[in-house]
Amino acid sequence: MTTKERIYQIIFEADTRLGKLFDVVLIYIICASVLVVCLESVKVVKQMFLGWFVTLEWIFTILFTVEYVLRVYSVKKKKDYIFSFYGIVDLVALLPSYISLYLVGASSFMVVRAIRLLRIFRLFKLTQYVGEAEVLITALQASRHKITVFLFSIFTIVLSVGALMYVIEGNESGFTSIPQAMYWAVVTMTTVGYGDIVPVSEFGKTVAATLMIMGYGIIAVPTGIVTTELANAGKEFKDKKTKEDISKCLTCMNNSHDHDAYFCKTCGRNIQ
Amino acid sequence: MTTKERIYQIIFEADTRLGKLFDVVLIYIICASVLVVCLESVKVVKQMFLGWFVTLEWIFTILFTVEYVLRVYSVKKKKDYIFSFYGIVDLVALLPSYISLYLVGASSFMVVRAIRLLRIFRLFKLTQYVGEAEVLITALQASRHKITVFLFSIFTIVLSVGALMYVIEGNESGFTSIPQAMYWAVVTMTTVGYGDIVPVSEFGKTVAATLMIMGYGIIAVPTGIVTTELANAGKEFKDKKTKEDISKCLTCMNNSHDHDAYFCKTCGRNIQ
Amino acid sequence: MTTKERIYQIIFEADTRLGKLFDVVLIYIICASVLVVCLESVKVVKQMFLGWFVTLEWIFTILFTVEYVLRVYSVKKKKDYIFSFYGIVDLVALLPSYISLYLVGASSFMVVRAIRLLRIFRLFKLTQYVGEAEVLITALQASRHKITVFLFSIFTIVLSVGALMYVIEGNESGFTSIPQAMYWAVVTMTTVGYGDIVPVSEFGKTVAATLMIMGYGIIAVPTGIVTTELANAGKEFKDKKTKEDISKCLTCMNNSHDHDAYFCKTCGRNIQ
Amino acid sequence: MTTKERIYQIIFEADTRLGKLFDVVLIYIICASVLVVCLESVKVVKQMFLGWFVTLEWIFTILFTVEYVLRVYSVKKKKDYIFSFYGIVDLVALLPSYISLYLVGASSFMVVRAIRLLRIFRLFKLTQYVGEAEVLITALQASRHKITVFLFSIFTIVLSVGALMYVIEGNESGFTSIPQAMYWAVVTMTTVGYGDIVPVSEFGKTVAATLMIMGYGIIAVPTGIVTTELANAGKEFKDKKTKEDISKCLTCMNNSHDHDAYFCKTCGRNIQ
Repeated sequence: MTTKERIYQIIFEADTRLGKLFDVVLIYIICASVLVVCLESVKVVKQMFLGWFVTLEWIFTILFTVEYVLRVYSVKKKKDYIFSFYGIVDLVALLPSYISLYLVGASSFMVVRAIRLLRIFRLFKLTQYVGEAEVLITALQASRHKITVFLFSIFTIVLSVGALMYVIEGNESGFTSIPQAMYWAVVTMTTVGYGDIVPVSEFGKTVAATLMIMGYGIIAVPTGIVTTELANAGKEFKDKKTKEDISKCLTCMNNSHDHDAYFCKTCGRNIQ
Repeated sequence: MTTKERIYQIIFEADTRLGKLFDVVLIYIICASVLVVCLESVKVVKQMFLGWFVTLEWIFTILFTVEYVLRVYSVKKKKDYIFSFYGIVDLVALLPSYISLYLVGASSFMVVRAIRLLRIFRLFKLTQYVGEAEVLITALQASRHKITVFLFSIFTIVLSVGALMYVIEGNESGFTSIPQAMYWAVVTMTTVGYGDIVPVSEFGKTVAATLMIMGYGIIAVPTGIVTTELANAGKEFKDKKTKEDISKCLTCMNNSHDHDAYFCKTCGRNIQ
Repeated sequence: MTTKERIYQIIFEADTRLGKLFDVVLIYIICASVLVVCLESVKVVKQMFLGWFVTLEWIFTILFTVEYVLRVYSVKKKKDYIFSFYGIVDLVALLPSYISLYLVGASSFMVVRAIRLLRIFRLFKLTQYVGEAEVLITALQASRHKITVFLFSIFTIVLSVGALMYVIEGNESGFTSIPQAMYWAVVTMTTVGYGDIVPVSEFGKTVAATLMIMGYGIIAVPTGIVTTELANAGKEFKDKKTKEDISKCLTCMNNSHDHDAYFCKTCGRNIQ
Repeated sequence: MTTKERIYQIIFEADTRLGKLFDVVLIYIICASVLVVCLESVKVVKQMFLGWFVTLEWIFTILFTVEYVLRVYSVKKKKDYIFSFYGIVDLVALLPSYISLYLVGASSFMVVRAIRLLRIFRLFKLTQYVGEAEVLITALQASRHKITVFLFSIFTIVLSVGALMYVIEGNESGFTSIPQAMYWAVVTMTTVGYGDIVPVSEFGKTVAATLMIMGYGIIAVPTGIVTTELANAGKEFKDKKTKEDISKCLTCMNNSHDHDAYFCKTCGRNIQ
């Protein structure tokens, strides 16, 4: 095994002791770097520890740069990695620090560093969460079409009620334009209810109350969709796992036998 | 194929290349026209682009008028189309622009143009979303009776708690009348919680807290109903599809066989 | 059939044409009387139509009194009716008007008349909603124990977080006592979020954010419970209906046969 | 039976009449003591009944001390009890009162007494709620991994949107730092919506509306997870119960027979 292969094994895999250690250390460094981004935005804290933040930021940037270079070096298909989702995230997480060298005062741009957190998702891939995440993703993909129909219906309701409330409430109480009224409709229908814009007229309140009860009922729909698909996805996942455990009948190639079956149910051949 | 039939094919169907193109272009025009309605309601934007808006509005009106005339011309059963849901929507989406020619200042009436968005639903009919929408609609129809019972119970709770809070909180803190208190009860029970009306007395707060926890529990009911019905609707839809795939037993006409059955379960005839 | 029996048939049943008419008229009168109670609480409306309200109220009171007397007269087991749930509701809906004759200014007491709405529930009994309501009630009863455990856990969380926030936020920002802080915890965990009491310290906000995400996750529990029980209740209801349709095997008394079975699955006897 | 054994039976079990009585009395005393803690935090009430509160607190402290001593005395494995969850709760519920003897003014510390409420959970163990609680706990444990993946995704969204809004809204309207903006993101996505921090710019409102609809859809995920797992847990619980009722086949020890089976399905032995 060459050094290049060993580096690949440590950085990209988690089967060896060093590979696992690398992943755990990486998670801690990523979390620490994101924490620094968050704390740096708090003025009081920034003024107190400005020197520390700059130092820490450079340490993180150097570490991530070294890691990125090693990743590109060790991987076989370099192009595939660089233009993959995680390859781009790894690069974008590095750039802001270098850019801020040239563009002084681009502090709001520095926030992009928070994107580093996305890198942790890569590590999920290597753990026992794979199966669970797979079921979740399968369920969400299966409900994609239904959710699209649903979201478009929501948008139509938001637009209609927004336009209606704009007419009813006139320019009073914050309903100053249709987009503003649509913002209110979203705030209301999702039951967030900030209270920065509220209806004041009697008729406006009646429409609002109707919208609320609709929103209340409508929340049932995505829940129902996801629940149904989750149940299906969970069952399929289990079935797939089970099916792999069951010996196929060699005569008729049927493999949908019960767990405790000793004979093929279609042709009667002993399958144990 | 006559010109009339060709126009029908392009406008009402989506099987030909021109038919699909027409649908896509129509979606963009509808969205653009609705966007103009929204932006026109924003004062700052309106003052800046007033000329543009008037021009665009006339272009949209002419396009939709031509489309409407072509639809009426090409369809066979003209009356059926004109008085159908989409026929009326198509017409209502046109009228406001013409009316505003005579009634200067009827700008609030112009908002009705937002109804154009409803026209997009027609296009769902022609896509792969039909099956998905069908399952959703079947589920909602099946839960109709249960939802009615549920909504009436909600209304009773809203009225009772509203009347109670009106008595408890007196005229303080916004509970000025029973309808007002009922509005508060809806805002609270649906967990919207604007905060424009809040209880101030200790007893009022206790009642409010009870209502919140009830509302929290009650949200479970429509979700449960819709989920159950969605699961049923999904299964039925699948069953229907499956059933069509399974060869019917030609002796006893039974077609409820298992997927992997080789013999009819009622009469024993080989069905593969 | 005596007059007494005929009155009973009209008032308590809905099988005859007159019985149905009586029910429909009663629903309208109840709704009208509740509407009057609501409108009377709005000051502006009350001052305008005070005379009308007094007259209407007396008409409703007389109608309901006559109805109550006829109910007591026509029913066989008078005591059972008078002390039944609906008997008490019928009486309580009458009393406020008579009491207000002696106690001038007892207007807040008048609100009790809103209880009349409960009478409409009686009419559900006679309609096609019986089955649906039955499934809902069965599901809620089956989830009773789980909901109790759940509600107690909620209460413990509310108390703990309330006490914690009282200590953290001191007397600032509305957390003036533990009950007050518990009220805030309920408002937050049920996602109502009025905003009349909000945490101001950093630590308080962190605790609040944790509580919110907990509340968000916890809402899943009652929904899950009710959904599961609704699915069971719906299935049982269907099974019961189906079972009644299936002929029992007369040899072994087994009646759990499939829909399309021609032979008893336990003893082989022809059951069609 | 020795006195020690009898005390154990009364305090730790609920099968005898005295044991049940002890539990019921304990629940009332715990609730009363927690109520005193709550009321004591209300200033007006505290000033009125200060003497009473001190007296009551000492009575509760003495009662709980006696109970704790008796528990330690009567239990066989003293160490196991003292360091068990409930053993620690029992002790912690006692200490604050004794500490406040030495540390005058440690009233905020007194709040820890609210922890006493946790003791009531012990009593659930002894009731008919065991099965129900077991199903709930099984379901929550089974959904543990999925919930972890879900919570981490939520956290990533909260951080990303928080950082984004911090940049968009600048220092206006409360988005003063990333942690503050993350607090807003949690308040919004969980649909709590206090309204203490709200976006003011158009772009900020658009991002907020998107977050709300996402939050609205995302709430479906934990609900779906818990519902699915609850259904599974409920079925397993039922199956386990059922399985215990079914006579095991004494030849091959298979006990997964159908309810209505008369012959072992693996070896053919009569099992009734």
